[in-house]
Amino acid sequence: MKKSDINNKYVLLEEIKLPEELKNLSASQLNNLCGQIRNVLIDSVSKTGGHLASNLGAVELTVALHSVFDTPKDKIVWDVGHQSYTHKILTGRLEKLSTLRQEGRISGFPKPKESEYDSFISGHSSTSISAALGIAVAMKKNGDNHHTIAVIGDGAFTGGLAYEGLNNAGKSDTNIIIILNYNEMSISKNVGALSKYLSTMRTKQSYLKTKNIIEKTLDRTPILGKPIKTAIKSSKTVIKNMLLHSTMFEDFGFAFIGPVDGHNISELQEALQSAKAMNKPAFIHVNTIKGKGYAPAEENSGEYHSIGKFEIATGNPDVVSADSYSSEWGKELSRLADSDARICAVTAAMKYGTGLQYFTETHKDKFFDVGIAEQHAVTFSAGLSKMGMLPVFSVYSSFLQRSYDQLIHDVSIDNTHLVLGIDRAGIVGEDGETHQGLFDVTMLTTIPNVTLYSPSCYEEMRMCLNQALYKDTGIVGVRYPRGSDNSTYEKTNLNIDYTYINNNSETLLITYGRIYNNLLSAAETLKEKARKCDVLKLTRIFPISEEIFQISKTYKHIFFFEESMKNGSISDKFSVKLFSEGYKGSLFTRAVEGFVQQATVSASLKKAGLDSESMVETVLQEIN
Amino acid sequence: MKKSDINNKYVLLEEIKLPEELKNLSASQLNNLCGQIRNVLIDSVSKTGGHLASNLGAVELTVALHSVFDTPKDKIVWDVGHQSYTHKILTGRLEKLSTLRQEGRISGFPKPKESEYDSFISGHSSTSISAALGIAVAMKKNGDNHHTIAVIGDGAFTGGLAYEGLNNAGKSDTNIIIILNYNEMSISKNVGALSKYLSTMRTKQSYLKTKNIIEKTLDRTPILGKPIKTAIKSSKTVIKNMLLHSTMFEDFGFAFIGPVDGHNISELQEALQSAKAMNKPAFIHVNTIKGKGYAPAEENSGEYHSIGKFEIATGNPDVVSADSYSSEWGKELSRLADSDARICAVTAAMKYGTGLQYFTETHKDKFFDVGIAEQHAVTFSAGLSKMGMLPVFSVYSSFLQRSYDQLIHDVSIDNTHLVLGIDRAGIVGEDGETHQGLFDVTMLTTIPNVTLYSPSCYEEMRMCLNQALYKDTGIVGVRYPRGSDNSTYEKTNLNIDYTYINNNSETLLITYGRIYNNLLSAAETLKEKARKCDVLKLTRIFPISEEIFQISKTYKHIFFFEESMKNGSISDKFSVKLFSEGYKGSLFTRAVEGFVQQATVSASLKKAGLDSESMVETVLQEIN
Repeated sequence: MKKSDINNKYVLLEEIKLPEELKNLSASQLNNLCGQIRNVLIDSVSKTGGHLASNLGAVELTVALHSVFDTPKDKIVWDVGHQSYTHKILTGRLEKLSTLRQEGRISGFPKPKESEYDSFISGHSSTSISAALGIAVAMKKNGDNHHTIAVIGDGAFTGGLAYEGLNNAGKSDTNIIIILNYNEMSISKNVGALSKYLSTMRTKQSYLKTKNIIEKTLDRTPILGKPIKTAIKSSKTVIKNMLLHSTMFEDFGFAFIGPVDGHNISELQEALQSAKAMNKPAFIHVNTIKGKGYAPAEENSGEYHSIGKFEIATGNPDVVSADSYSSEWGKELSRLADSDARICAVTAAMKYGTGLQYFTETHKDKFFDVGIAEQHAVTFSAGLSKMGMLPVFSVYSSFLQRSYDQLIHDVSIDNTHLVLGIDRAGIVGEDGETHQGLFDVTMLTTIPNVTLYSPSCYEEMRMCLNQALYKDTGIVGVRYPRGSDNSTYEKTNLNIDYTYINNNSETLLITYGRIYNNLLSAAETLKEKARKCDVLKLTRIFPISEEIFQISKTYKHIFFFEESMKNGSISDKFSVKLFSEGYKGSLFTRAVEGFVQQATVSASLKKAGLDSESMVETVLQEIN
Repeated sequence: MKKSDINNKYVLLEEIKLPEELKNLSASQLNNLCGQIRNVLIDSVSKTGGHLASNLGAVELTVALHSVFDTPKDKIVWDVGHQSYTHKILTGRLEKLSTLRQEGRISGFPKPKESEYDSFISGHSSTSISAALGIAVAMKKNGDNHHTIAVIGDGAFTGGLAYEGLNNAGKSDTNIIIILNYNEMSISKNVGALSKYLSTMRTKQSYLKTKNIIEKTLDRTPILGKPIKTAIKSSKTVIKNMLLHSTMFEDFGFAFIGPVDGHNISELQEALQSAKAMNKPAFIHVNTIKGKGYAPAEENSGEYHSIGKFEIATGNPDVVSADSYSSEWGKELSRLADSDARICAVTAAMKYGTGLQYFTETHKDKFFDVGIAEQHAVTFSAGLSKMGMLPVFSVYSSFLQRSYDQLIHDVSIDNTHLVLGIDRAGIVGEDGETHQGLFDVTMLTTIPNVTLYSPSCYEEMRMCLNQALYKDTGIVGVRYPRGSDNSTYEKTNLNIDYTYINNNSETLLITYGRIYNNLLSAAETLKEKARKCDVLKLTRIFPISEEIFQISKTYKHIFFFEESMKNGSISDKFSVKLFSEGYKGSLFTRAVEGFVQQATVSASLKKAGLDSESMVETVLQEIN
């Protein structure tokens, strides 16, 4: 297509096969395309589920980026990555959008293995500046003058890694471009001083314009106007800094552009072209509206951050889950806080995700949302604990990985008491390998002074929380899965230690957590197949109580099924201990190995051999 | 002592038993005390070794803090903590200073178990603001109006955790006080945009004074002066921000005081009193000189950062180590880079510590000191690697703990190639529990796509580095200890896999790393005691090669000695695999359990049962 041919032509999104074709389109054509993209996004996510509000907010920005830069030679690094659907649409993946987040199909996050346009993996927050800087430095060393662009939201800016990246990128000898996609809230409402600072920027006039006004005013000021201006320009004092550097990002060494209207294609293109023309690190502040163009999402972008299927006309979600491990956790914590002023709830930007909205209703003064700052959350909690409070940090298993050093150094060495609510533990499903909660057990059990629980139902989770707060010391983690308690077994003799079902068999099946339900069902089937098994379910999974070993030693065959990474797992530790004590029977363990790809939870459990059917097969196969 | 009695009295440091006694002293008496403290510091560290330059720089600040605040009710949190010697002297530990860093004696870092004046553990960088905020919030909830003060250097400010803390502290409803101890360099010369920003602040006049000048100038400006001033005061635009907020720290919500001369007691006391009187978060910028008062340390504060014994008159260190694993690593990396333009060296503020000064001599353009920012170092390196470079991140084992999530998420999932030089791996000695390098093996082996080497001498380390760069993929770690190669065994048949000494015994001793030397010596002694043993030394410790298992299975007794934490250790993995394959012999493993306290390396190895003598005892005891 030549520009002259298509200037007034209506362009269908389906006709855009490569992002370079956007270069020939007029602003009005691009605007029209944005409308089509929004329709595709709403239609598609209503059927597949996924991230909606963040994607609707980034449509114009993404179109402008691909119209100004030459991807994949220019590299775009999407922070967190859940805003990259438009990028996927424009880079040859329009048709595939309907299979988003399904097993073996396209990911809800950028994935280099999926497309050469996805230059760096994402999923966790605040990584984009560091990754983009590495790419930009390498390109420069390779004599490649293409650009690297990091697109990062204000939420991700609350993470220390973003700041470490900023501190290095601003003074770098590269042409890196950082785009702040400012939408005032990331997942929950943003917190912290930076958020306040940025929201001031949002409302102010363009910095450059203002600086001109000051200079013009001084030009018109008789007698002292000129001397002041000269003094400002030549002096090395704070005055110069104040006038020439008005933003923190300039302090960090970036050329600053903005704020730019993130839903105005021409304004965006102009800002991007300016940054592209500079031969130095640039920072563009772009204002966007989360959920832009779809009223239900604009009005409640928190709810439409990550959503299941929904009805487009009404915006009503397909299925409303009445309860979840998260909500039950938040409610129980709130109930306990009613009669204990020491209990504090800490979250790293996951108030709703971890069910703490129930806590804030009545205990707002003891609720701390620290931003996407898991390191700080742990060290801050240690400070609270040192002074007699009872902090509970509720966090997704996958994000707790960020706190490893703080857990060792700031909590464990002094044996400080800290309760961790480890949410989304185990397999999480459609978000895939970046979000699985499979490392918490192996990570935490390398640390001294750690106790871990893995309840199999709501009631047990509540018991574990009570135990963690009032009986245990040191770091005490309670891990529970995403979603609801679907267990069907009879809730008798619940306790925080273990449940033992003794049928006088010579085979023992061991497990913990939600797959206990699968194991019970497997034991039933095995019984029907004339292979009677005993069952041992751990609730406290670490340290393993001595009784467990005494019970286990009496069996000829032991099978240990575990929803955790294999290396360093509880079954590994169990195995080491049992054999060191001279166990001579057979022990078969099944845990997760390697990264788990996106799929439904049940499909992933099956693949890992942790569904009831696979358990039956494993036992029959290994014993025969 | 009454103030009137002592105003002109010469006060001896020995007379100060409690920090509250400082309150009665005049500025000149305090100054005199500072001189005495300096003499004690120099004299003491010259005999014990330890951190000198940072402590000499913080004498007046510490004295001023204890003279203004009521410790231990007011809480001081020392970031990193190696500047806390004066604090120890003033809080009843003067006599104990001569036993600093010795086994069972006082620590070189603040330690709550040691004194109620040490309010939070430290050792790792950038934790103080988060810990202090937790303490301050808890005190407020408890109705306690005392203050919490975080003392943090500009080096520690390059770590993201400090920024996460700042972002939360600035907007907090507390009276927290952050003191920036600005001395232009932390360990190596500081890096990054923030450093540049702070150094601008160092030279400028007091911000408050300057603001007054502007206002006065405008007052004197006819016609437009007043309207401009009014516009500034009332407007909500950037102009107001520029005049009312001149520092990044004010943007973050703090009342800003400074810069203050950090060697002027009266000026320091005045600033601290101002901050104390405010009922909001305050930030004080204090300029200090590292090594102040001792010429050799002032001139070369890097060398005097952490030092062994030295001669006071000349400043000459007692023993100069000609070589170390670190220096050999840096030299080999530099040699390889001579013929490979892809090799980049990355460090997190440990250029000298990791021997990279040898790399920078000829490859400055491919050397990246990112500040105390281990998270960024890994993600940045991943970006470099994605574009075809060969990044090598050299880092202390203990500090690598900060990168756990980045290693999983930004490197391992995509199986990106990254070489880690894991320095100070194993027991490190006198710095104690916060600095031991004992978690790297257990931490890294929970991550997929990881290969680990633990060479036992310089030559092997060089072979491992070559292998890591040119043969392996994914994350490849080479771990080596602090200090020199003291191995005495004959260097034949060195390789990157394993060394097997077969004497046709029925007992096999397995180990890796520097304690191989101890094991060989133990095997000699055992032979003399008529207990002949075979020896297997691993160089690649993970994954363990299949041959190792085949060899091991043939033995009746196996002993595995390991300089690493026990839970999740290589010996644990070895044990799991061997028994899962039906091994029926006995296996005894000895690794480190719990935190290792300060002591000499050899004393700690003995305590852990990893010296030659203990190995002999273990074998004889377990077999008989």
